[in-house]
Amino acid sequence: MTNNITNSNLHLYNSLSRRKEKFVPIHSPNVGIYVCGPTVYGDAHLGHARPAISFDIVVRYLRHLGYKVRYVRNITDVGHLENDADSGEDKIAKKARLEELEPMEIAQYYSDNYHRDMEAMNVLKPSIEPRASGHIQEQIEFAEKILNSGYAYESNGSIYFDVVKYNKTNHYGILSGRNIEDVLTNSRVLEGQEEKHNAVDFALWKKASPEHIMRWHSPWSDGFPGWHIECSCMSTKYLGENFDIHGGGMDLLFPHHESEIAQSVIANGNSPAKYWMHNNMITINGQKMGKSLGNFITLQDFFSGKSDSLDKAYDPMTIRFFILQAHYRSTLDFSNEALLASEKGLNKLMNAYKLMGSLAPSSKSNENILALEQKCYQALDDDFNTPILIAHIFDGVRIINSANDKKLMLTTEDIINLKKIFDVFVFDILGMKNQYDSNSKQEITENLIKLIIDIRLEARANKDWAESDKLRDKLKSLGVIVKDSKEGSSWEWAIE
Amino acid sequence: MTNNITNSNLHLYNSLSRRKEKFVPIHSPNVGIYVCGPTVYGDAHLGHARPAISFDIVVRYLRHLGYKVRYVRNITDVGHLENDADSGEDKIAKKARLEELEPMEIAQYYSDNYHRDMEAMNVLKPSIEPRASGHIQEQIEFAEKILNSGYAYESNGSIYFDVVKYNKTNHYGILSGRNIEDVLTNSRVLEGQEEKHNAVDFALWKKASPEHIMRWHSPWSDGFPGWHIECSCMSTKYLGENFDIHGGGMDLLFPHHESEIAQSVIANGNSPAKYWMHNNMITINGQKMGKSLGNFITLQDFFSGKSDSLDKAYDPMTIRFFILQAHYRSTLDFSNEALLASEKGLNKLMNAYKLMGSLAPSSKSNENILALEQKCYQALDDDFNTPILIAHIFDGVRIINSANDKKLMLTTEDIINLKKIFDVFVFDILGMKNQYDSNSKQEITENLIKLIIDIRLEARANKDWAESDKLRDKLKSLGVIVKDSKEGSSWEWAIE
Repeated sequence: MTNNITNSNLHLYNSLSRRKEKFVPIHSPNVGIYVCGPTVYGDAHLGHARPAISFDIVVRYLRHLGYKVRYVRNITDVGHLENDADSGEDKIAKKARLEELEPMEIAQYYSDNYHRDMEAMNVLKPSIEPRASGHIQEQIEFAEKILNSGYAYESNGSIYFDVVKYNKTNHYGILSGRNIEDVLTNSRVLEGQEEKHNAVDFALWKKASPEHIMRWHSPWSDGFPGWHIECSCMSTKYLGENFDIHGGGMDLLFPHHESEIAQSVIANGNSPAKYWMHNNMITINGQKMGKSLGNFITLQDFFSGKSDSLDKAYDPMTIRFFILQAHYRSTLDFSNEALLASEKGLNKLMNAYKLMGSLAPSSKSNENILALEQKCYQALDDDFNTPILIAHIFDGVRIINSANDKKLMLTTEDIINLKKIFDVFVFDILGMKNQYDSNSKQEITENLIKLIIDIRLEARANKDWAESDKLRDKLKSLGVIVKDSKEGSSWEWAIE
Repeated sequence: MTNNITNSNLHLYNSLSRRKEKFVPIHSPNVGIYVCGPTVYGDAHLGHARPAISFDIVVRYLRHLGYKVRYVRNITDVGHLENDADSGEDKIAKKARLEELEPMEIAQYYSDNYHRDMEAMNVLKPSIEPRASGHIQEQIEFAEKILNSGYAYESNGSIYFDVVKYNKTNHYGILSGRNIEDVLTNSRVLEGQEEKHNAVDFALWKKASPEHIMRWHSPWSDGFPGWHIECSCMSTKYLGENFDIHGGGMDLLFPHHESEIAQSVIANGNSPAKYWMHNNMITINGQKMGKSLGNFITLQDFFSGKSDSLDKAYDPMTIRFFILQAHYRSTLDFSNEALLASEKGLNKLMNAYKLMGSLAPSSKSNENILALEQKCYQALDDDFNTPILIAHIFDGVRIINSANDKKLMLTTEDIINLKKIFDVFVFDILGMKNQYDSNSKQEITENLIKLIIDIRLEARANKDWAESDKLRDKLKSLGVIVKDSKEGSSWEWAIE
């Protein structure tokens, strides 16, 4: 069975309707996806890995099905305010003065690091990666449109979206299910927010205080765009006023995505995306992970093992596999034990893949491999259920190991189909890299050297000094220096 | 001798004065460099590698000397017109309609490819990599400034810089040495250029024709910025109105850099850069290499060997070394023979580096290694003369090989200093990667396997079947399958 877009049965959970819906693109075979990308003022941590990998699976699977996907993921390099209160200074600008650097130099540095980390985890690059700072004019024009429509007001050089007015004829809360009355009751106008008519209003443009170094001219003030407007603006520019999927972390659902909808309804006349998808959070001992909570572990920490919270270094593929072992809408609790289990599982899986090459085919079969393939598709068609998919893959692992132990029989066709399942689902769609090659070749090299040293020790035990010297010289010619001592023989590479 | 900024004797050739000048930064120890980056409408070829690598050496050496360098290299993703005539359509937009893609998707694709290729050649990332499309507002404001000063005029929704008026009180030709009268005599107003007062005038803003898909609002028309203004704008924004070094290929000297100077003189009141540096071109059989000439070889072609013009694949480090073997201001003619010679030279150099680890020190010395180090600094201080530097390094190679052949003596200190010369000049400043490690480790692995197979063959010759079987099983456990036949024993990996 080969899946394709004409007989696709993909269903996904739409946060907007709060139920699973069949996926029907607006302009098939084209699919437009917008995902909220990183704010580049610090190194990427586990919390950044999850949305990147979750939506990587969405894009990979849609492309596998035959859709032509334009994937837009932005870089927030301006305008993400320090707190929910829309006051306070821009996170990036704050770090800039701290380090006495140009804000864009910091943004570039952390963008580059983000790209490096995503590449290590085999996350595909987006089709377009727009920067918020690169779309100031578009954001000003978007704010102007809302202002002209009467759903925003100017106050002291800043422009605010009038949520209360909007809610009279529309539903601010359509995505999050929040009730604006509750929000108003629970919000108080914080210091510096007096210029807002209501606490729930949000900035489309903020006038910059004199010391604020990231600033642009606007019809209202020298300032910078509000946080929510960049995504409305850039998704409209690159995917149109109405596109298929808008994704992001669940923490962005309110107020960010809720406000995006309100902005687009006023400026474009309609809600921007047909499907809204949200990945859940990663917790540490049940607590949300975050920079402000001080309990985050950067991806570089994982890759190097340099963190008190970690027992050892983890390969980027282990992190990827760990994340995929939970469904994207479930919370995922981090622990060393869980990561070690992922590492072990991944090794088991890769070893089975390796074994496939040496399986002896039989004329009979005890397994229905095509049914297994179908189950794999069904798992992904059910809202990208990667843990179920992985369970099926492990069923494949069991079959391979049993066949290798001669406990069951597989035909040549079975083996070919099993290999296809691994190639398609493990490598292409789950995006795992076969690291058996590079990692273990190094290990093999070291084991080969140890084997030769053992042979040499045997020769020495037999007082065959000629053989012993010959082997030492041969190893030296290959750059391996053998050192004999009372304790035995050790070795090292001739140069670093 | 250690060089540093307080006793630096660095001289560089300033295209503006047409002579070598001592390098004195405006705000030492800070140095600002702006280099014209790629236009992202196609894959990077050898002609892109040269400026990237030439200015990589400049940045690496300045940082080695202790300067704090902010390196800005832009991405031209809009506004680079098809021909010198300022008419015709935007190169990127043209390709977009051809492939029915969003122009920014193409720009992103080729930007990503450019980054991949530069990373392969170990070119450092710039501190800030601004995109032209991300600075439309700034470019409009820059054009407005020039318009308000009276040195530009509006014509049919486009804005042109008035070169003839500028040249009355300034010198349009100060950088290129061209005489505006000659330029005017040799220029004719092409079709579609009737709106210009003089053929030599250049666009600051171009009104977009209806089918032009890359467009932004401006006070004058929906259109796009002229090509020259982006660099004036982005260098001013990130390095200030007056910075140290402006670099680029010699083909950009006129009209691009000449026009940048004119723009900055009017908008900022001064010439933007203190030093102008230009790398020369790469030729093929004496001909300029270029997309429009159809004789360019992409970097991916070099790395893969997939081009009729190439005898084989070349490692990115070979390309880098080839480029560095010519001075950046000399033309460099490409041929397979020249590349093969570079490859051979680089191997010789890396082998010498490897040999250093096993040199036997003597109590006496026949060589003055510190003098050699000083010569290396002198080569770089003389306008980054990398071919002379490499000649000195090969003197080091000769010394190492002779010492290894016991034809000359080196003290321990000599060997340490020699290693330092390689580490600093070959790896840190020339930016070569020691590929001995990864490349030859694979070779070593294969040689280790062959060695064990030889030991096993000996055991078999001695009819020691137990030993022979033991070694075969040991190898199998490491994933190496040994196959015995009449012709001897061969081996293969258990899986691909």
